[in-house]
Amino acid sequence: MSWSSSAKRVKPSDSSVCPPNSVVLFAGPCAVESEGQFAEVARCVSDLGLSWIRGGAFKPRTNPYSFRGLGEKGLAIMADAGNRFGLSTLTEVLCAEQCRLVASYAGGLQIGARNFQNFSLLEEAGRVCADTGKPVLFKRGFAGTIAEWLSACEYLKMAGASNIVLCERGIRTFETATRFTLDIAAVPVVHHQSDLPVCVDVSHPAGAQHLVPPLAKAALAAGADALMVEVHPHPASALSDGMQQLDLHQFETLVEELRVLAAALGKTII
Amino acid sequence: MSWSSSAKRVKPSDSSVCPPNSVVLFAGPCAVESEGQFAEVARCVSDLGLSWIRGGAFKPRTNPYSFRGLGEKGLAIMADAGNRFGLSTLTEVLCAEQCRLVASYAGGLQIGARNFQNFSLLEEAGRVCADTGKPVLFKRGFAGTIAEWLSACEYLKMAGASNIVLCERGIRTFETATRFTLDIAAVPVVHHQSDLPVCVDVSHPAGAQHLVPPLAKAALAAGADALMVEVHPHPASALSDGMQQLDLHQFETLVEELRVLAAALGKTII
Amino acid sequence: MSWSSSAKRVKPSDSSVCPPNSVVLFAGPCAVESEGQFAEVARCVSDLGLSWIRGGAFKPRTNPYSFRGLGEKGLAIMADAGNRFGLSTLTEVLCAEQCRLVASYAGGLQIGARNFQNFSLLEEAGRVCADTGKPVLFKRGFAGTIAEWLSACEYLKMAGASNIVLCERGIRTFETATRFTLDIAAVPVVHHQSDLPVCVDVSHPAGAQHLVPPLAKAALAAGADALMVEVHPHPASALSDGMQQLDLHQFETLVEELRVLAAALGKTII
Amino acid sequence: MSWSSSAKRVKPSDSSVCPPNSVVLFAGPCAVESEGQFAEVARCVSDLGLSWIRGGAFKPRTNPYSFRGLGEKGLAIMADAGNRFGLSTLTEVLCAEQCRLVASYAGGLQIGARNFQNFSLLEEAGRVCADTGKPVLFKRGFAGTIAEWLSACEYLKMAGASNIVLCERGIRTFETATRFTLDIAAVPVVHHQSDLPVCVDVSHPAGAQHLVPPLAKAALAAGADALMVEVHPHPASALSDGMQQLDLHQFETLVEELRVLAAALGKTII
Repeated sequence: MSWSSSAKRVKPSDSSVCPPNSVVLFAGPCAVESEGQFAEVARCVSDLGLSWIRGGAFKPRTNPYSFRGLGEKGLAIMADAGNRFGLSTLTEVLCAEQCRLVASYAGGLQIGARNFQNFSLLEEAGRVCADTGKPVLFKRGFAGTIAEWLSACEYLKMAGASNIVLCERGIRTFETATRFTLDIAAVPVVHHQSDLPVCVDVSHPAGAQHLVPPLAKAALAAGADALMVEVHPHPASALSDGMQQLDLHQFETLVEELRVLAAALGKTII
Repeated sequence: MSWSSSAKRVKPSDSSVCPPNSVVLFAGPCAVESEGQFAEVARCVSDLGLSWIRGGAFKPRTNPYSFRGLGEKGLAIMADAGNRFGLSTLTEVLCAEQCRLVASYAGGLQIGARNFQNFSLLEEAGRVCADTGKPVLFKRGFAGTIAEWLSACEYLKMAGASNIVLCERGIRTFETATRFTLDIAAVPVVHHQSDLPVCVDVSHPAGAQHLVPPLAKAALAAGADALMVEVHPHPASALSDGMQQLDLHQFETLVEELRVLAAALGKTII
Repeated sequence: MSWSSSAKRVKPSDSSVCPPNSVVLFAGPCAVESEGQFAEVARCVSDLGLSWIRGGAFKPRTNPYSFRGLGEKGLAIMADAGNRFGLSTLTEVLCAEQCRLVASYAGGLQIGARNFQNFSLLEEAGRVCADTGKPVLFKRGFAGTIAEWLSACEYLKMAGASNIVLCERGIRTFETATRFTLDIAAVPVVHHQSDLPVCVDVSHPAGAQHLVPPLAKAALAAGADALMVEVHPHPASALSDGMQQLDLHQFETLVEELRVLAAALGKTII
Repeated sequence: MSWSSSAKRVKPSDSSVCPPNSVVLFAGPCAVESEGQFAEVARCVSDLGLSWIRGGAFKPRTNPYSFRGLGEKGLAIMADAGNRFGLSTLTEVLCAEQCRLVASYAGGLQIGARNFQNFSLLEEAGRVCADTGKPVLFKRGFAGTIAEWLSACEYLKMAGASNIVLCERGIRTFETATRFTLDIAAVPVVHHQSDLPVCVDVSHPAGAQHLVPPLAKAALAAGADALMVEVHPHPASALSDGMQQLDLHQFETLVEELRVLAAALGKTII
C-alpha cells in the first residue's frame, strides 16, 4: 500500500538533520530578546528532550521602525544557551555578508520567505553550508509556487549545500481569518517531486495561539519531517509576533499531544 | 489544557449527523454512473462499517458539453443502494426547484461551492431541511472568505435548517500544483467562531489520487468532524474527476490508516 | 498596425447592444430605493445623452439581514422611469424563476458575479433572452478564470441568447486596498479569445468614490466596449454600497472626462 | 472637480525623474545581450524623442541555469549607448554589493519585485542614491500589499534617497491567462497615499506582445507618471522574456498611440 504511505518514503541518510521516522521540532522565540528570555525557552525545550532551538538575531521587518533584533549579540546568546542546554541552534541570515558570521555561531542557517528569490544570498549560504557542513532551512516565499521554490533551491545545491530542509510557512491568499494560508498540500507535493525533507512553520500562518496546535497536528499527519513553532516565556510582552507565540505551558501540552499522534504514525518527535 | 484540545469542544446533540467524538466519512463516486458502479462502491463502504455514501445525480459542470449526471434516475439508484446496503445517502442540489425532489430520495442535501452565494437555493434548501429534518452539507465557495461562508449559512438557519454541516473544499490561489489550495486552518477557525460541525472534502483540493491520503490525515488531525472522499470502482474510466477518485482498494487502505490516527485522537470513524 | 489596435476589431452587428466605435455607459444606483431616487438619476443620465440606466430590484446580499431590494415594485419603478426619460433599463436576475418576470419589465438582464456558475439560471436566462431578443450582461465570478467565464457563457449561447455582453468586475486577491482587484487585462484577453463585447464594472473593484474615475478611464483606454458605474443622488445615505457610488455631480464630471478620452480613441460614449 | 482629476495632483519638483504633466517611458530590452542589440534599441528610443533606456545587466532568474546577464560588461554597453544616443540609463541591482558599481555606470537604479523586502539591499541602494543624487525605481513585490510596498519604501527614504519612483508590475493571483495580474488600481491608490510618482511595468503582467498596448494605454489613463515597456530588435530570439517584448516597429506604433492618448489627458510622453 506504499502509494498512500508517506512514512515509507526513502529518506536522506542518517547524517541529515531529519533522520528517518523522526520529526524535528524547531522551537524557540521569534526573536532573541535577552539572555534570560532565551535561556528560559532553552531549558524548556531541553527538558522536553528536543534537540533544536530557533531564534531570530537579525529580524526582517516590514516596517523599518520596528524592533530589528539584537544582531551579533543575539547570535552569542543563542550559542551560549545551545552549549549550556545541549541544543543545536537555528537562526536566519538576511544577506550574503552575514552568512559566515552566522555560521560561526549557529548550528544551522535559515533563509526566510522574503529572501526566497534573493539569489545572491542563496548562493553564499550554499557555499557556507558546503564549507561547514551545516544545514540550511529554506522557507517558501509567500507568493512562490512550489515549482519556483524547488527551482530556487537549485541555487543552494549548485553552491554545494547538501543538508537542505524545505519549509512551508503559508502563502498569501484572499482569506484574512488567518495571517497566511497554510498550504498543507505542499508537504506531499514536495515529497512527490523531491527527496528533501519538508518542515512546516505553523506559527506564521496561524497568526494566533489557538490555531497553532491544530495546524501542527495537521502538518504532522500530512507527513512533515519537521515542524517550526514559536515559543516565548511571556508572549504578551514579546517584542515581535506576540499573538502567535505559545507560552511554555502551552508548548509542553502541544509536544505531549504531538507525541501521541506521532506514535500512531510510527514516528518520534525529536 | 482545553485551549489546545479541539476534541473537548462541546458538540451538537447526538441527533446531529456528526455525533461527538466521531468522524463521519462521506465517501462515494463523484457521479452516479450506473446501478452497477454505485452498488460496487456502496458494498465497499458498507463492508467497511461506514454509515454514509455520497454521489452526484445532478452535476454542475464548467463546460455544458460535459457529462451532467443521470438526474432523477441517479437519485433512484442512490436510494435503492442506500436501502440495500443500509447507508444514508448524500447528494447535491443545483437549484431551488430540485430541493423537494432530491429530499424525497436522499438522506441529506449538499450545496456545492458554485452555489455558495445562490441565496434562493439556500433559502429553499433550508425550508426543505426544516420540513424533513434532513441534514444539509454546505460547501464553502472557492473564493469565499470564512466570514462570508458563515454569513451565507444564516440563510439556511433563517429558513429553519437545524442540522447543518459546513464543508471546506479548497480555495483558489496562485498555486497550480494542486487543483485547489486546501485551507486546513478553516477547521479550527470555524470551530472557534461557530458550533457547527466541519467537514473537509479532500478530493477536490487534491486533484490527484496520491495527495488524497495525506490531506485526509491532515484534516482529521486538524479536528475535522467529517471527511468527504471520492471513490470509484474504476477511476481511470470515470465520467468525471477520474484523476482524484480513489479505487476501492486505495480507499480501504486509507480508511484503515485513518482509523489508527482517529484512535490516537480519541475519535471513531463512522 | 492592427496588431495593437483593438478599435479595428470586427464587432458584432449594429443590432448589438454595443455598436461599433461606441462605448455604452450602464449607469445607475446600486439599488432602486424609491421612485424619487431613481427618477433623479434617470433625469441626470438622460440629460447627459446616455441610453441605458441600471439599478437593482433583487439584491444578492452576503448577509441575509441586509436590505434585499424592492423586488417587483423596483422593476416597475425602473420601467416607468425608463419610459419617461427614454432610457433602456438593465437589472439583475437572481434565480431562474425571476427571468420571465424581469424580462417583462426590463430592457436587459444582468447575471451577477455570485451566479457566474449557477447553470440553471444561465440556461433559463438564455432561453428568455432568445425568446425576447433582449440582451444579457454576464459578470465574471470573482474567483472565476477567464476560461471558466467563457465556458459558462456557452450555457447562455446554447439556450439561444445572441446578444451577450461579458462584464469584468474585479477578482479576489490578497490586496485589501481596494474592494476587489480589477483585472484590466481581461478586456484584451477576452477580445482575443471571443467576439463578444466586454463591459467593465468599475464601481465594485473600486469600492471607493475617488478610485472610480481612474479605473473608468483605464477600462476605456484598455478597449472596453461598455462601462458600468454606480450613481446615486445621495451616496452617503444609500441603502447599499454607499462608499463606491458617485453623486450626480461627480458622475457628470466623469462623463465629460470620459468623452474627451473616448474621442482620442475614436469612440463615442453612448 | 479636482476629486477626479489625477492630472492636477501636486507633483514632486522639476528635478524629479518624473516632471509634472509628463509621462516617462522606460523602454529597452529585458536583458542587454550585445553592443549591437542594445544600440539598435537605443537608436529607436532616441529617434522617438524619448529620454530613458532600460536594460538588464544582472538578471534575477528563477532557474539558475537560465541566462543571467552580461554583468559589468552589460553595464558598460548601456553606458556607452546612453552617451552615444543621449539617453539616461536604468538598470537593476540584485544585491547590496552591486549598488556602487551599478551607480558608477547607470543613470538610475532599479530594485526588482523579488527584492521588494530585501531590506539590506534597500538600505544600501538608498545610501548610494543619496550620495549620487540618482533616482531609484522600486518595484512592488508580486505578493506585496500596497501598504507593505510603501512601508518597504521607508528603508530607501531613511537611507537618504530622495528621487524614488514606485513601480507596479502585476501581482500573483489565480488567473493564468496573463503572466501576472496588473493591479491597475495601485496607481490611484498610491497617488492617494503618497506623493511619489508611480510607474507601471506593462510587459511583465502582459506576458504576451498583444496585451502590452492595451495595458500601456490603461496605465496612462489611470494616471501613471511613467511606463516601463520591454523592447527588443528581434523578440523571437531574445535570451529572456521573448514573448512579451515588442519589436521596434510595434514599439513605434505604441508610442504614437500613447502620444495621442497623453495629449487628451494633458500630458506629454518623454
